[in-house]
Amino acid sequence: MSFSPLIRQLIDALRILPGVGQKTAQRMALQLLERDRSGGLRLAQALTRAMEGVGYCRQCRTLSEDGLCPQCSDPRRDDALLCVVEGPMDVFAVEQTGYRGRYFVLKGHLSPLDGLGPEAIGIPELEERIARGTFAEVILATNPTVEGEATAHYIAQMLAPRGLTVSRIAHGVPLGGELEMVDGGTLAHAMAGRRPIGL
Amino acid sequence: MSFSPLIRQLIDALRILPGVGQKTAQRMALQLLERDRSGGLRLAQALTRAMEGVGYCRQCRTLSEDGLCPQCSDPRRDDALLCVVEGPMDVFAVEQTGYRGRYFVLKGHLSPLDGLGPEAIGIPELEERIARGTFAEVILATNPTVEGEATAHYIAQMLAPRGLTVSRIAHGVPLGGELEMVDGGTLAHAMAGRRPIGL
Ligand SMILES: [Zn+2]
Ligand SMILES: [Zn+2]
Repeated sequence: MSFSPLIRQLIDALRILPGVGQKTAQRMALQLLERDRSGGLRLAQALTRAMEGVGYCRQCRTLSEDGLCPQCSDPRRDDALLCVVEGPMDVFAVEQTGYRGRYFVLKGHLSPLDGLGPEAIGIPELEERIARGTFAEVILATNPTVEGEATAHYIAQMLAPRGLTVSRIAHGVPLGGELEMVDGGTLAHAMAGRRPIGL
Repeated sequence: MSFSPLIRQLIDALRILPGVGQKTAQRMALQLLERDRSGGLRLAQALTRAMEGVGYCRQCRTLSEDGLCPQCSDPRRDDALLCVVEGPMDVFAVEQTGYRGRYFVLKGHLSPLDGLGPEAIGIPELEERIARGTFAEVILATNPTVEGEATAHYIAQMLAPRGLTVSRIAHGVPLGGELEMVDGGTLAHAMAGRRPIGL
């Protein structure tokens, strides 16, 4: 079957969204056209404004159209704590844990094979941010992958001379999971990181 | 956590897409902003053009910005066969079975409780289309739901005096489902197993 050109172009354009394949894109396109054209136009406008208007917070480097993002401009946050993550989505994840310190958002992780060294991911800016700040502790919350570990290790070494606490989020078994579903590496970390049960 | 206003508005707007909840919308918004702003702008443009430009084919009533859709304007299709469906997505589904006749697209199904009678769903236009056409057989491919069955039965009764074959897709399609969710093989069987409607 062929859709008319405008519909076909809309289906193709929707496929740039993560997790959206051909069939999902078709359903999205036809449903908008049939049931919610004003919603479709609002989405178009929101996309245009965001793609053209959103830059990066000058302090933490997360996505924001304001020079200072909501987390950096909030005066009630703890200026003694800095959490370092790989991307803006991770800010959202850490925020849900109840953390209310400051953030620094890297551009991913060190990846020498792809030519991504410290400058490419924003490590010099992180160093400047720490020099300007009043942090007592830097929490390294890069991803628990080989590259995330290497990036955390690199930053920890860089910060060693500064005499502040540098910590890494704990590895262990995920809450609510089943032990038999946990991979061996994770379980080994969980065993090594075991603690006395406080009663 | 709070995203900056433009990002928040984009996340809200993305949630009008079918099957997209808060977390998926966040991932979509941040991924577009981080990795594919030109794709996001192309999507905005495709949305605007489609929402403003797409109307309905004057012959089959499917979505199309041209007066005649690709299916209606194709001279190689069989003018003796008409397939009646509930919506544009169903045209796509039936098309995948290899069917190459003509279509008529209703606006859903009869739903007396919602005040949707024959006029509301386009039955008079269907009757005109059949009167103008040269059809030997009308295949009723409304959804295999209670309402779809009732709609098929209503149309079959309306067409009875015309002396053409009126058939219903076979119940190879699961009862209670929606046509657009049925896999192509099942639907192909249902098309092949269609039978004249006994009144
Ligand atoms: Zn910030
Ligand atoms: Zn048409």
